Amino acid sequence: MRELTPDHLEDIALGAAVLGTGGGGDPYIGKLMARAAMERRGPVQLITPDELDDDDLVVPSAMMGAPTVMVEKIPSGEEIVTAFKALQTYLGQPIRATMSIEAGGLNSTTPFIVAAELGIPLVDADTMGRAFPEIQMCTPTLYGISATPMAIADEKGNHAIINTVDNRWTETFARTLTIDMGCSAMVANFAMTGRQVKDACVGGTISFIERIGRTIREAHTRHDDPIEAVRRVTDGFVVWQGKVADMERRTETGFARGEAVIAGTGTYEGRTLRIAFQNEFLIARDGDEALVTVPDLITILDAETGEPITTENLRYGFRVVVLGIPCDARWRTAEGLKVVGPGYFGYDMPYVPVEQRFGAAMAGGA
Amino acid sequence: MRELTPDHLEDIALGAAVLGTGGGGDPYIGKLMARAAMERRGPVQLITPDELDDDDLVVPSAMMGAPTVMVEKIPSGEEIVTAFKALQTYLGQPIRATMSIEAGGLNSTTPFIVAAELGIPLVDADTMGRAFPEIQMCTPTLYGISATPMAIADEKGNHAIINTVDNRWTETFARTLTIDMGCSAMVANFAMTGRQVKDACVGGTISFIERIGRTIREAHTRHDDPIEAVRRVTDGFVVWQGKVADMERRTETGFARGEAVIAGTGTYEGRTLRIAFQNEFLIARDGDEALVTVPDLITILDAETGEPITTENLRYGFRVVVLGIPCDARWRTAEGLKVVGPGYFGYDMPYVPVEQRFGAAMAGGA
Repeated sequence: MRELTPDHLEDIALGAAVLGTGGGGDPYIGKLMARAAMERRGPVQLITPDELDDDDLVVPSAMMGAPTVMVEKIPSGEEIVTAFKALQTYLGQPIRATMSIEAGGLNSTTPFIVAAELGIPLVDADTMGRAFPEIQMCTPTLYGISATPMAIADEKGNHAIINTVDNRWTETFARTLTIDMGCSAMVANFAMTGRQVKDACVGGTISFIERIGRTIREAHTRHDDPIEAVRRVTDGFVVWQGKVADMERRTETGFARGEAVIAGTGTYEGRTLRIAFQNEFLIARDGDEALVTVPDLITILDAETGEPITTENLRYGFRVVVLGIPCDARWRTAEGLKVVGPGYFGYDMPYVPVEQRFGAAMAGGA
Repeated sequence: MRELTPDHLEDIALGAAVLGTGGGGDPYIGKLMARAAMERRGPVQLITPDELDDDDLVVPSAMMGAPTVMVEKIPSGEEIVTAFKALQTYLGQPIRATMSIEAGGLNSTTPFIVAAELGIPLVDADTMGRAFPEIQMCTPTLYGISATPMAIADEKGNHAIINTVDNRWTETFARTLTIDMGCSAMVANFAMTGRQVKDACVGGTISFIERIGRTIREAHTRHDDPIEAVRRVTDGFVVWQGKVADMERRTETGFARGEAVIAGTGTYEGRTLRIAFQNEFLIARDGDEALVTVPDLITILDAETGEPITTENLRYGFRVVVLGIPCDARWRTAEGLKVVGPGYFGYDMPYVPVEQRFGAAMAGGA
């Protein structure tokens, strides 16, 4: 157990945006919300999955919707607790702890609000090891764990409890309700036992993103290369550098969708990278060649500061470096790729692990 | 208390379609479903609102969706009970009786299935005195009674419990879930006390539609004019006779929408009536002149048999008579018209009670 104070949020929010792969919402907003809750209610206890009893009830909490909208409709701490409390009432037993559904920007810090408001611990884990756009894209899905009963609530006081036959249906129902709620909602789902958290989730996520954030901060202090620092701490690969030449974005079927076009500079001069996104970056292509694809992480860093940039903050003219980062091994299984591989998102291309493509090249270049 | 057997369903289903004003689903399907349940489980006890204790819990049950789809996706008795049982579990207390949400085709007999399957009585009442397309269009809304918590279920095993800040939001959420569920779903909502049923609902509905059905049947036996028989039992007015010249229909935003065009015959020769519908008939217009508008009932009868015809069964060439029937007095108040008047449906015209327009004409003509 470790006590986290508002000051810890700086590194956590910064690191979260690296694993957020452009999505998960603006980490700055998440940080402000979490800070306000913690200043009101006190620090948050971070516990490891091993500190849970096997039969403890754990419920992740998150925001759902298009990040483009979420940043304009900032929920109060109370609303975030509405969904969580509705699920607790429905389940009829006390929830021992909450956790992050994803390691993305906003949703890494959202559960801090629930933990602070309700005085329960936060588990150092998440269910993706990164951010993904849809509900069923969680490691518990690969273990046959149901996303429902799921609670969803808006800022007006409306809420619902959903029960579905599989996690794909959970996504369908929750997405249309989110759209009705104004493209932004609070959710509580994937209720699990302590045993399930230990077996089926990605452990150490909060500590990991905190370490990534700290690495960037310390690189600044020491005048080290922050890009290289992020690359090293994430086991990532530099796959591109260039200048944002175009941003095409739209809010569609409840998602922020679009494409970032990055004109190459330096060794990439004369070539163009296109990165498609659905909340998160999905596929980075140089012409017909896919450089990095889901489920591996595509992260865009500011070329100068090394700070990660979300899709809604990416602008024409930004000078950036693109990293490819290996995903959790479970996403690389046949079953994992069915849920989050390029094919699921409509791209007819094989998944090639990022280190297979870039690890060899770098070894050859060394 | 009165015991209803499958044989009673004939008159009930026939009469229900008269008050269904073209919507509410095919009464034939509803009759088959109710008959199967009653043959399996036994007869249904029909009780009057007065037979309820003031603190009894009563929950209406219904199908929701586009009638055009509902008739192709006939639910089993079990599915209908899923929504009802989910709400009972959520409410945490036994439901004493069920009732009809509307006096429309399918939904007059849907609650018979719940009553038979669960062995609970059916209350002789409904919440509209006719059929309307949207959830909030129920007399309890005028008494400040919430439609939620509401349960909604599909045939795949998915279900949800909705809680909303007003009944218009209930409609929004339930409609999109219904669309996700394939444009057809089972619902249980407007949980009420016995006292609320007595005060806020339309009493005697099942007996009334049974009487309408019996009247048509007996007119056939006695070779009386069935149109005149329906007109008399409903206090209605003949507003048109003619031949269906065109039917325009589409399933849109979860509703069956469109327009029936009826070329006049006899005294109506040379003129054309247009009846717009959203599941139910809304507005009957002769050129620019509105003859009948919501909330009054517009009912299309087969000119020969006097049997009511639903929008999905109406075909080119049918010879028909159009009746205008006065609605429940509560719909004619300022508050009622806000919920179900022409303006709500987007028609910029005043509501004129059907007997004001046609009662005088008939008195003059008598």
